[in-house]
Amino acid sequence: MFDFAIKHTHRSARRGVFRTPHGEVQTPAFMPVGTAGTVKGITPSQLKATGAHMILANTYHLQLRPTADVVRELGGLHTLMGWNGPILTDSGGFQVFSLAGINKITDDGVEFQSHIDGARLTLNPESATEVQNKLGADVIMAFDQCPPLPCNRETLASAVDRTIRWAQRCQNAHRREDQALFGIVQGGLDLGERQRCVDALVGMGFKGFALGGLSVGETHEEMVSVLEPCGEMLPVDKPRYLMGVGMPRDILAAVQAGIDLFDCVLPTRNGRNSQAFTATGQLKMRNERHKIDTAPLEEGCDCETCERFSRGYIRHLFIAGEMLAATLTSIHNLRFYQRFMARIRELIVEDRLDDITEEFPIAVSEG
Amino acid sequence: MFDFAIKHTHRSARRGVFRTPHGEVQTPAFMPVGTAGTVKGITPSQLKATGAHMILANTYHLQLRPTADVVRELGGLHTLMGWNGPILTDSGGFQVFSLAGINKITDDGVEFQSHIDGARLTLNPESATEVQNKLGADVIMAFDQCPPLPCNRETLASAVDRTIRWAQRCQNAHRREDQALFGIVQGGLDLGERQRCVDALVGMGFKGFALGGLSVGETHEEMVSVLEPCGEMLPVDKPRYLMGVGMPRDILAAVQAGIDLFDCVLPTRNGRNSQAFTATGQLKMRNERHKIDTAPLEEGCDCETCERFSRGYIRHLFIAGEMLAATLTSIHNLRFYQRFMARIRELIVEDRLDDITEEFPIAVSEG
Repeated sequence: MFDFAIKHTHRSARRGVFRTPHGEVQTPAFMPVGTAGTVKGITPSQLKATGAHMILANTYHLQLRPTADVVRELGGLHTLMGWNGPILTDSGGFQVFSLAGINKITDDGVEFQSHIDGARLTLNPESATEVQNKLGADVIMAFDQCPPLPCNRETLASAVDRTIRWAQRCQNAHRREDQALFGIVQGGLDLGERQRCVDALVGMGFKGFALGGLSVGETHEEMVSVLEPCGEMLPVDKPRYLMGVGMPRDILAAVQAGIDLFDCVLPTRNGRNSQAFTATGQLKMRNERHKIDTAPLEEGCDCETCERFSRGYIRHLFIAGEMLAATLTSIHNLRFYQRFMARIRELIVEDRLDDITEEFPIAVSEG
Repeated sequence: MFDFAIKHTHRSARRGVFRTPHGEVQTPAFMPVGTAGTVKGITPSQLKATGAHMILANTYHLQLRPTADVVRELGGLHTLMGWNGPILTDSGGFQVFSLAGINKITDDGVEFQSHIDGARLTLNPESATEVQNKLGADVIMAFDQCPPLPCNRETLASAVDRTIRWAQRCQNAHRREDQALFGIVQGGLDLGERQRCVDALVGMGFKGFALGGLSVGETHEEMVSVLEPCGEMLPVDKPRYLMGVGMPRDILAAVQAGIDLFDCVLPTRNGRNSQAFTATGQLKMRNERHKIDTAPLEEGCDCETCERFSRGYIRHLFIAGEMLAATLTSIHNLRFYQRFMARIRELIVEDRLDDITEEFPIAVSEG
């Protein structure tokens, strides 16, 4: 039901195909984020037209609203969202540690308060897995502990220990053959801890591995310093997923380190905040200089927005507070990310991935 | 360049085709409202998929933002909005009288303050026409005075007098052959004043006529009492447009009185406010009872929303504050209006328009 085939490697970069019950994903792949069961402001048909194959939804948000039971009653995530392609859900752990108010962390799990209504809730490896079984995504994630960075060695080692113990409990709790459970490697910027975590997870039967605890405040260089060795540590034959990353140059560096899957809210969040991605950098679309500009957001872009609308119109929509501004800019940004990934895939096969920075200077210029 | 052909009449109802430089409109027709150059939350391709042929944009809003000059610089309204079908602009008069702060009304025109930034502006027959010439819609409207209702005979007669004088000035100022200028009939609920206004406008060479000053607070019965005689007064061979109307039962009554064109913000405004139109009445989509309902908004509806999403999902999107909630509900509501109009057109040809109330009980039940 799941299969990962590497078609070509170029140095450490991999061009692969990840097969899931809801279709194939060409890797390296970027997954748009549908936090609460919708990629904000975008319909599934618009999303598909951007070239997205696989998307992500957040267990934490869906568990709070509408709840996993309601999602299941409404037919599971694919039916709910009207998206029949592959979906990945995270475990909820990252949001619990970043959005919610933590009351208590023990080896059993986490007691926290909903950021929406303050309700007291718990999440542990078993419940996070059960919730994801109910949601029904193709790929589900182990429940891990993501320590705040920077942190001392002891805290980091303790988080890795717990992540390892919790990973086994997730694997034990997992019930659905049609879902692939991925393990999450923690360890911060400490390569010894990363290696220890990988060594422990590899024997547990995970169908893929994620690198957690990155893109949480460290510099680009710090992230890269972990990515390359981690690429060496992980099994070659399983998909690798860098959670929550990121800007084009982060993605490029990770692809060069052998990472296959990415997700990030930037295309849609920046789109709502009037920032449009282009190969040479981001445009601030509320700026006066776009006022009578008949050019599209990006020359040569084949998205619905660029084929039909001018920068002047999109500026007008932002200034007038029109919803369509966010939708059109998000569509473009999502398409930008998919064009970037598609070109990365082509250049891996052509053994000249470095050339991506000529076509997309943003991949070296913007952090 | 313009032509109006009546294909069939059934009692006073007319089944026609209105030809414009941007295509044909099957009448009776409903025009979705794109206030500031966008039907809120909807892309042009989504709008087209609802079955809309002709849309409306508001001169007042566009004149304030982004201004008529900017619209012209950006290629005119059709290019700006990415809508290559027919467009109608109103004259701005109604918004000046309802939204803006009026400083002074004289025979020359109106001095008012922008509702956005308080800027002091003027609008008169010449400038309203010039602005609409710049915007470039297929149909443009004369600048009229819409008196507040109820008002005394003298005020009403004075507004009719001014509307007549201003209509001639608009006709004199109009410069574009590729735009059809429509006259507006005022006169409130006073049939004598309506007749006087029609008699004066008929000789001025307008390509169509609108009934103004209705749907401004009077009852459904009061509106109907004016519509039927006005249908008799107006020239048979020109399209007739009832501005800003309305609920399905208002539209049906007006079609029965011989009206051809309609516009209203209800499908999109109610959509944003979580109300979904159905043949039997409106649903409040935030209601708990939709929580685990897998049914579409309306059984048998062929819109993108109903073909793909459940009531439970749409409720979730509203509760979670997701933009997509407004978009999906607006798409359904717009399609509902277009299905209603399409069925009206069919039933006129079949000489059994009264049967519409069996298929759309909302047309008799909801005011």
